[in-house]
Amino acid sequence: MTILVFAGSLRKESLNKKFAREAARVLKTKGHAVEVIDLRDYAMPVFDQDIQDGEGFSTSVTALGEKVAKATALVIATPEYNGSIPGVLKNVIDWLSRLNPMPLADKHLLLLGASPGALGAVRGLWHTRVPFEATGVHVFPTMMGLSAAGSAFAEDGTLKEERPAKQLDGLLDQFTKHVG
Amino acid sequence: MTILVFAGSLRKESLNKKFAREAARVLKTKGHAVEVIDLRDYAMPVFDQDIQDGEGFSTSVTALGEKVAKATALVIATPEYNGSIPGVLKNVIDWLSRLNPMPLADKHLLLLGASPGALGAVRGLWHTRVPFEATGVHVFPTMMGLSAAGSAFAEDGTLKEERPAKQLDGLLDQFTKHVG
Amino acid sequence: MTILVFAGSLRKESLNKKFAREAARVLKTKGHAVEVIDLRDYAMPVFDQDIQDGEGFSTSVTALGEKVAKATALVIATPEYNGSIPGVLKNVIDWLSRLNPMPLADKHLLLLGASPGALGAVRGLWHTRVPFEATGVHVFPTMMGLSAAGSAFAEDGTLKEERPAKQLDGLLDQFTKHVG
Amino acid sequence: MTILVFAGSLRKESLNKKFAREAARVLKTKGHAVEVIDLRDYAMPVFDQDIQDGEGFSTSVTALGEKVAKATALVIATPEYNGSIPGVLKNVIDWLSRLNPMPLADKHLLLLGASPGALGAVRGLWHTRVPFEATGVHVFPTMMGLSAAGSAFAEDGTLKEERPAKQLDGLLDQFTKHVG
Repeated sequence: MTILVFAGSLRKESLNKKFAREAARVLKTKGHAVEVIDLRDYAMPVFDQDIQDGEGFSTSVTALGEKVAKATALVIATPEYNGSIPGVLKNVIDWLSRLNPMPLADKHLLLLGASPGALGAVRGLWHTRVPFEATGVHVFPTMMGLSAAGSAFAEDGTLKEERPAKQLDGLLDQFTKHVG
Repeated sequence: MTILVFAGSLRKESLNKKFAREAARVLKTKGHAVEVIDLRDYAMPVFDQDIQDGEGFSTSVTALGEKVAKATALVIATPEYNGSIPGVLKNVIDWLSRLNPMPLADKHLLLLGASPGALGAVRGLWHTRVPFEATGVHVFPTMMGLSAAGSAFAEDGTLKEERPAKQLDGLLDQFTKHVG
Repeated sequence: MTILVFAGSLRKESLNKKFAREAARVLKTKGHAVEVIDLRDYAMPVFDQDIQDGEGFSTSVTALGEKVAKATALVIATPEYNGSIPGVLKNVIDWLSRLNPMPLADKHLLLLGASPGALGAVRGLWHTRVPFEATGVHVFPTMMGLSAAGSAFAEDGTLKEERPAKQLDGLLDQFTKHVG
Repeated sequence: MTILVFAGSLRKESLNKKFAREAARVLKTKGHAVEVIDLRDYAMPVFDQDIQDGEGFSTSVTALGEKVAKATALVIATPEYNGSIPGVLKNVIDWLSRLNPMPLADKHLLLLGASPGALGAVRGLWHTRVPFEATGVHVFPTMMGLSAAGSAFAEDGTLKEERPAKQLDGLLDQFTKHVG
């Protein structure tokens, strides 16, 4: 079982990149094969059918599609933009969904979300489920929103507080047990 | 009352561009001031906080923001990509929501959706409501999904069949009466 | 303008009944005509088309329908049950939607939600919007989730903390200004 | 693997009861152990915490909870009321979610929906996913909406048209393969 982990955000200091890396670290300690990627390394234009018809898929789209295709499961930590899925993540889905074979089909996905505020990106996670489920992804019912994420991570990237650390650990166990 | 009309799609032959133009035409016959724009003329990068912090807003973002700010109401015809809001439209919301003052706040919005299939983009319209409502937009409760849109438009851009034509006409009346 | 206020919960000590009553009190201090009702006084069976066809509408359904019909706007404070609309509130919508004329059409609605936990019923509020919007209700885009509601109210029913009290006050002003 | 099948509707001539029975028949021909129940036989009051605290769970709630607990998977055919989950089905979830152990946790669920109209209850199915997922149910990503259901079934209960019959057959294969 290979697990592909990334964040639904581009900025370098993204809290969700930190959350994704920490989830990956915990998964590795449990003996899973994990690959962490950064969507910044897979820059793609805003989806436009005319681009697909004219130029075909960019190498970033096909390369990301191959990463997804090889993975058994995905863990995505995503911010909430305006109570909903970030455009950057939706754009990735729009492009990947055009590939044939469609790499997202039948994948297992665990959604995480970090936010500096009190709600922990929870509204956005529910909105983010929809396009993945529409492409045939098995989105794990339980998700984790990390609130006050601006101060949640220690220097070494681990979660400072025991409660969210245990929640993440338990959730990753549940998820990998379900997928396995 | 000025009504800004556009499609949530980039491609030139977009069915939703046709639907948007037809809605604009009908609104004009009713005496409303209407402006139709094409998101292709407002190309913007995928949202990235680092771009906003480093380079600020592109002229496309500020120009679109001004168009929205001047309008009393918006009519957006949007396709459904993977049962949900297109990345291109979500990306526009992500950028506009960062402007200050935020041009979407308190605007009235009517959502239309055209699709070649039988469901008329209806699933996607419900998903599309969420980010707009999260930014304070009054999304009109009734929406219109146009099914079999590939053959719905005559050469002159009008709707061939009486039933959808009447539905659009009545919905635009309801919407403008509510906004006015 | 008459505003009908109630909670989407039946139990006597419901936090959302407290929240509804407090919203009503604030609205009265602003000079609005307000009526607070309790769904416990409008007991209705679980919706079943056979009951409607056989026995017609119960007096609770027609009486509640009349209350809604007379109101200009509704304020509903609703708990979140399983991340979503409570069955009791959905059941009320199902019954009211069968009345002719349909009393919910074109009403304005403000949704509030109280919960003992940290998320303040916010997930449930977004799920609750959908059936109201499907019946033609103008659901106000901004909503208010009150977290830690078990300790939020003073003996006299007012909100203890200044921050949520101000939030409620400002939101009610925005809502009534929009409706008026 | 035992599959529990029922409809999210009470009325005797419910199209969704027909759809549920047909799904059950097809599952049996594939060799699965199937039980079909009718929510009419599990009448329960509208959920009220005071009832739970005072009288405890009715026998209908505990009996339905046991049926769910014994099943490996559920297939529910549900109508769409006002673009959303029927109150009767939400009420069942609200009651079952209070049982301890909670019988819905980790169950697999396939959602079907029949409607007399063109949209096949599809909007409602997406809304119905949410409370199930919030209780830890693995809702199968693909769902099936049956449009024009008033004329879809033959005298013997089978689907008249080849296309929906094949769609149902294939979807049930996918679902049981995934669960198995």
